[in-house]
Amino acid sequence: MLVEFSIIPIGVGSSLGAHLAEVLKIVDASGLPYKLNPMGTVIEGEWDETMKLIRKCHKAVMKTSERTVTIISIDDRKGKTNRIEAKVKSVEKRLGKSLKK
Amino acid sequence: MLVEFSIIPIGVGSSLGAHLAEVLKIVDASGLPYKLNPMGTVIEGEWDETMKLIRKCHKAVMKTSERTVTIISIDDRKGKTNRIEAKVKSVEKRLGKSLKK
Amino acid sequence: MLVEFSIIPIGVGSSLGAHLAEVLKIVDASGLPYKLNPMGTVIEGEWDETMKLIRKCHKAVMKTSERTVTIISIDDRKGKTNRIEAKVKSVEKRLGKSLKK
Amino acid sequence: MLVEFSIIPIGVGSSLGAHLAEVLKIVDASGLPYKLNPMGTVIEGEWDETMKLIRKCHKAVMKTSERTVTIISIDDRKGKTNRIEAKVKSVEKRLGKSLKK
Repeated sequence: MLVEFSIIPIGVGSSLGAHLAEVLKIVDASGLPYKLNPMGTVIEGEWDETMKLIRKCHKAVMKTSERTVTIISIDDRKGKTNRIEAKVKSVEKRLGKSLKK
Repeated sequence: MLVEFSIIPIGVGSSLGAHLAEVLKIVDASGLPYKLNPMGTVIEGEWDETMKLIRKCHKAVMKTSERTVTIISIDDRKGKTNRIEAKVKSVEKRLGKSLKK
Repeated sequence: MLVEFSIIPIGVGSSLGAHLAEVLKIVDASGLPYKLNPMGTVIEGEWDETMKLIRKCHKAVMKTSERTVTIISIDDRKGKTNRIEAKVKSVEKRLGKSLKK
Repeated sequence: MLVEFSIIPIGVGSSLGAHLAEVLKIVDASGLPYKLNPMGTVIEGEWDETMKLIRKCHKAVMKTSERTVTIISIDDRKGKTNRIEAKVKSVEKRLGKSLKK
């Protein structure tokens, strides 16, 4: 399944870059396929492995933040793999043109 | 922590009531504090118990749906409990009036 | 359509109650049907009137916050009205029992 | 502000590619900066122009779908521009390495 998540530390000021870097360090080291975008990170895998990774990231941010909001969106589709690459390509193919990514 | 979730089966028609009833049956039997609203269900508990419940609901919907989108929002705040009741009451107290719930 | 929204001021500390009260004051005065829950506020109306209200709430929070995250979920279904009451009742009817709200 | 949105037609089957292509055609023609990812589209602009574009996309999907769920996440930060490029670069700079995008 595809999972996008975004972790927002509350009460640590309005600059969140250091916390996001900590999260991405964990994601990048996890070995799961991922893609970072300006509003979140998309990962691909089974429920248990993706949720374990998000739990680890959330807990890491809670170490330095009193309050944290984490938003998770799951798109689970039977019998489909490598959707982290295929979904965008499929849209481009239908439109017959390359899109901004 | 407080967790709101919403499970949307895709490809089973536009009436989702039967699937939502199945989900709420699982939530109501779980023993976790919960509140149903027109757009989702809010539960309160630790990461592992809340995520285990949402996983169970998501998997139940996947049994009858080829594709499912699940949206999860987490609000985790150190040292606070019974926020499922306290958050709304706190807003009402500040405004000095009862709000629609 | 049904619209749930949640406004999170960033960088104003971890206690957000005063900002939420300001938002609910605007919602309560708007005249639109609404229901407050521990994770957000659900309103019902057409696109332009619901989005105008959320814009007003978001702009009010931005007056005292350098950064604000606003999450909006829309459930738009043709030919259905008063869903802010009907959706939950429909689930209860299917289960044959009253649920926590 | 940065805005990510995702439009999910309900009741049109589990393959949503044709609907997503229609949405991306509108986004690509809008002239607003955007980035497509496997779970949504991020756009950058002021409230009125970004919401006008999402409204147009949502209404286009509603033409062929009886029910549509649209999820919108806004990150609004005073005095910052070109964040659609800068946010990811800032994380990479902190980590001293290139990330998957």
